[in-house]
Amino acid sequence: MAHSAPSSVDVGLSEEFAVPAHVEEVRRLMTEFAEQHGSAGRRVVLITSGGTKVPLESRTVRFLDNFSSGRRGASSAEYFLDSGYAVIFLHRHRSLYPYSRLYTGVNVLDGLILQSDKEEGGQVVVDQKALPNIGTVLKRYHEVKASGLLLPVEFNTLSEYLHLLKAAAQALSSIGSKAMFYLAAAVSDFYIPASEMPEHKIQSSNGPLQISMKMVPKMLSPLVKDWAPQAFVISFKLETDPSILLERARRALDTYRHQAVVANVLDTRRGYVVVVTKDTQHELVLTDEEVQKDVEIEDKIVSNLTVAHSQFMSQI
Amino acid sequence: MAHSAPSSVDVGLSEEFAVPAHVEEVRRLMTEFAEQHGSAGRRVVLITSGGTKVPLESRTVRFLDNFSSGRRGASSAEYFLDSGYAVIFLHRHRSLYPYSRLYTGVNVLDGLILQSDKEEGGQVVVDQKALPNIGTVLKRYHEVKASGLLLPVEFNTLSEYLHLLKAAAQALSSIGSKAMFYLAAAVSDFYIPASEMPEHKIQSSNGPLQISMKMVPKMLSPLVKDWAPQAFVISFKLETDPSILLERARRALDTYRHQAVVANVLDTRRGYVVVVTKDTQHELVLTDEEVQKDVEIEDKIVSNLTVAHSQFMSQI
Repeated sequence: MAHSAPSSVDVGLSEEFAVPAHVEEVRRLMTEFAEQHGSAGRRVVLITSGGTKVPLESRTVRFLDNFSSGRRGASSAEYFLDSGYAVIFLHRHRSLYPYSRLYTGVNVLDGLILQSDKEEGGQVVVDQKALPNIGTVLKRYHEVKASGLLLPVEFNTLSEYLHLLKAAAQALSSIGSKAMFYLAAAVSDFYIPASEMPEHKIQSSNGPLQISMKMVPKMLSPLVKDWAPQAFVISFKLETDPSILLERARRALDTYRHQAVVANVLDTRRGYVVVVTKDTQHELVLTDEEVQKDVEIEDKIVSNLTVAHSQFMSQI
Repeated sequence: MAHSAPSSVDVGLSEEFAVPAHVEEVRRLMTEFAEQHGSAGRRVVLITSGGTKVPLESRTVRFLDNFSSGRRGASSAEYFLDSGYAVIFLHRHRSLYPYSRLYTGVNVLDGLILQSDKEEGGQVVVDQKALPNIGTVLKRYHEVKASGLLLPVEFNTLSEYLHLLKAAAQALSSIGSKAMFYLAAAVSDFYIPASEMPEHKIQSSNGPLQISMKMVPKMLSPLVKDWAPQAFVISFKLETDPSILLERARRALDTYRHQAVVANVLDTRRGYVVVVTKDTQHELVLTDEEVQKDVEIEDKIVSNLTVAHSQFMSQI
């Protein structure tokens, strides 16, 4: 039996999901960011990235999480910045971050050299074999930082994500169709309401664990209908079973009436995606030669979507 | 109703928990490490650190996790190395690591300076204000690496953790009472057996989620009785409710008959622990002055335990 998602998120969001303390401060920053760049004629993309943490206890020791390093969101942010977008990067705490993501596999101390035996005062330099292209990457990182085109916002729990996404959508509504939503975060479909959550750590001496989780309201629905109705909205669909992927992507488009779904399968997600719209279906593939040259699939996804965003803006 | 833990782990470990591909290779490395340092008269500590990932699907998108940055394990490793121990550091992939842990709050790119406008060939140096004490820390890190006293081993899932802990215990059994087990990892008490796990991503269209989890066998029992019966074994007990902490710690000692429990409460874990043994109970506290001076509670825990380990070895 298929259950439909709850129809409205506005009712009950604050009751079921604790409001993060800093949401008003972040809302103000995002609103200023959107107005500043919008009035300069710039497009603004909100990228969501990383998985959400769903606590099982209110003093949380255990939680449910979603597989996501944040790689796709972080690399996409770089390509959007290269394309002239201003970027709000709403990401999971400690997930991958634009530019520094290129060095996360390395222990930073393996990439540094102490230039004299003097521990203090001695110069510490980067071993550029251990951190390849560090000069180029560092220059670009500092340019982006100085430009004011990247606004990073962190979340940790599902509750924080939901409230910050709503605030972001409302902040971006002022710039109409110049806003893009690129919802790459791996958001939990399930949660335990605060009212049903034990306060303290669940004791293993109580025996096997039964967890009952409710369905998380689908934010896409109010986002498209109420919060930012003029924006260009992209969702992501990750499946492990390729046979149901496109049907699931089409169903999401039918349900939420947004502009596109980027559909991908867990095992092949770094080399193959399908951008599905109401009328079209674009396969984006990395060739072997492109893989050799370190071309990233996010370069192609962002190219595809920035063109589609231009068309969308011109049709309104 | 209290359920007792399954009595034996040997039976069924490989059936219920997938054997990681590299376990034999790691067992060989750990055995060599233990023999080399044991025959040099050195004590060897196995530190476990970080949380375990418990998949809900075999092609995993969702998983249960335990709150743990790995901070306690990583800092303890440094103090054990300072005390002359050889250290096997069995840690969760991407959890905090000795020495580099001191810089994880910083985006590394914020700590680097490009010394000329030339992107390539230009020298990149560390901004020592952004990475305080980097010279001292880097020197110590390279010393430890060159000394061969630190063997890092990674796990990701609960299954990997269980198999690698068993292999480590067997590897350390050859050095008898010179081995210490410092089990600081936050190991899940619950799991879903492979046979009951869906292959593919659970569909939210199926409605609310019911998860039934079985209890993870307690490894302490076979570790103390069978795998490394002469070793000095320390477990950790983290609770959110202070009122049950010491009773739970004593109950663990009664059940598993190991040497000590380090008991701590989530909110105060960085400044207060109790080391509980069969006959004693030592409170370790950081004073305000010590907190000011960046003294860490792990320094005190390791001092306490290395002394107790000496007494333990002399009594055998």
